[in-house]
Amino acid sequence: MKIALRHGAGGEETSKLIHGIFATYFQNDILNKMEDAAVLPKLNGVPVFTSDSFVVEPLFFPGGDIGKLSVCGTVNDLACMGAKPLYLTASFILETGLDSETLEKIVASMAATAEEAGVKIVAGDTKVVEGNGGLYINTAGIGARPSVCNISAANLKPKDAVIITGTLGDHHATILTQRLQMETSLQSDCAPLNHMVQTVLDAGVDVHTIRDITRGGLATVATELAEASGCRINLEEEKLPVSEAVKGLSGILGLDPLTMGNEGKMLLAVPYSEAEKALAILQNTKYGKDAVIAGEVTEGTGVYLLTALGSYRKVLPLRGEGLPRIC
Amino acid sequence: MKIALRHGAGGEETSKLIHGIFATYFQNDILNKMEDAAVLPKLNGVPVFTSDSFVVEPLFFPGGDIGKLSVCGTVNDLACMGAKPLYLTASFILETGLDSETLEKIVASMAATAEEAGVKIVAGDTKVVEGNGGLYINTAGIGARPSVCNISAANLKPKDAVIITGTLGDHHATILTQRLQMETSLQSDCAPLNHMVQTVLDAGVDVHTIRDITRGGLATVATELAEASGCRINLEEEKLPVSEAVKGLSGILGLDPLTMGNEGKMLLAVPYSEAEKALAILQNTKYGKDAVIAGEVTEGTGVYLLTALGSYRKVLPLRGEGLPRIC
Repeated sequence: MKIALRHGAGGEETSKLIHGIFATYFQNDILNKMEDAAVLPKLNGVPVFTSDSFVVEPLFFPGGDIGKLSVCGTVNDLACMGAKPLYLTASFILETGLDSETLEKIVASMAATAEEAGVKIVAGDTKVVEGNGGLYINTAGIGARPSVCNISAANLKPKDAVIITGTLGDHHATILTQRLQMETSLQSDCAPLNHMVQTVLDAGVDVHTIRDITRGGLATVATELAEASGCRINLEEEKLPVSEAVKGLSGILGLDPLTMGNEGKMLLAVPYSEAEKALAILQNTKYGKDAVIAGEVTEGTGVYLLTALGSYRKVLPLRGEGLPRIC
Repeated sequence: MKIALRHGAGGEETSKLIHGIFATYFQNDILNKMEDAAVLPKLNGVPVFTSDSFVVEPLFFPGGDIGKLSVCGTVNDLACMGAKPLYLTASFILETGLDSETLEKIVASMAATAEEAGVKIVAGDTKVVEGNGGLYINTAGIGARPSVCNISAANLKPKDAVIITGTLGDHHATILTQRLQMETSLQSDCAPLNHMVQTVLDAGVDVHTIRDITRGGLATVATELAEASGCRINLEEEKLPVSEAVKGLSGILGLDPLTMGNEGKMLLAVPYSEAEKALAILQNTKYGKDAVIAGEVTEGTGVYLLTALGSYRKVLPLRGEGLPRIC
């Protein structure tokens, strides 16, 4: 079946679509009530709230799809604040001509990712616009974090170690090579990182800052953190993890892994004294195997790269369009 | 300035757009922290959570615009559960070619509506896709409701009175006539109804069900409620409020106000014994002046219209496409 405008009219056909696909895959005790808004159990902690829209093209790529991405993105944003992600909404803008089988595959992927992350999809919305069979997804998320928790973009401190949880540029390189119809072994790193983060927090590590390294790449994210905290970040070029495949592609196409987007990598800042402990914990998790200590926070401003030659090069945030519709 | 793909890349241009427009109009103590996710004060009550996307065309119409609509829609969904709306996220999918002045007007309208509703916009997201200068907005919302509150779509009871808070079909008729470039005096009813609802709840009225009468119109909404509650709803044709302008348009174009969408009208079900009290309170509010008792809940199933001739006619939910992109 192809999605048509009537599926977005709010009448009988919308209802069939909701019950036939969304309610079937996302079902849980809260969603099943099908109210105008979901009534949640009381939260155990301070509420944390976020939202992201996803417009990635192509819809399916090695390592993921727009559905998986839409759950991971919001789950990871909550985890970055030290929150346990709990509830998501899922709102769909469908283009006419979209195959309902395609939609079903995407929704199944969202359900599987939500299951892995341990979150419930509790409410949603469906609209239809004229188009060419694509779709956009928005997810909003609520999590809860402990009353005492200072994790923040503004909480970097001099003498923090900067940990990067894995190789840089994989998602970006995957989307780009898919668009160029290149055959490669690249896989998006798209993953829900909340359990990885929780393991570090549960071990009592005094984490100052967590940020997922998405659009704009490490260069942009690190610049924002340095600015928010009033500190300087030094990254060691030789320690930054980049896969051989991404290195090769970057060489050929003139890309810089520092400004390439990721969907399953984080930067964590912890006091130097706790860095080795945090690293060992991360390396023992499913998505943190390649974690490294790749830099440090100092007094000052800006982000600098200590090159293999021993000089410092200023790192600038992404300018220009990067790769459109990467997430 | 025209929006281009670089504004969605997550780098310097995205940051300028966020700070230049979104952060300027939406500013508050929580949003200003610009974290990956907003850390909220503890909620006073049970959390209620919802999300809606908005794709209305045209972007501006008499009585409102996509920005006002996007705030009202989510605020009203929370109010329908008896919750006090508190926090919203605002996520934008911008099409290339969108004028930044147009975006700014829409964002200003969102900020003004949020102010009226008493909610804070605490987080957001911006993506850019290729297109023709349009945009889509998603808002998600969190509210809090009292621990003891049974307001639900499934809580209609026989001997409830059905109150409709104002005239039907205004938003639908406005969007339709704008598309047809007809000159009329029609105005969308788009409005934040949370204060109206709160006034009724604060007076201690035992409200069983609240539903905003949006896409699909009263016919669709009443059908869903009757089904969820296992009851029958009888509506009195002569009591249903419809403006002369909407009546005239419906006559000419063969429309049915029962399936026309609204953006500032609600159905409330309250025990018959409290109906007059609730009505008087509603009629004393800004958006409830034209409220009427228009029907009743009985044992049985389905929705029926008591016609002027004294016969009962079965009311069916909207089938087919209604009016695409009405909200």
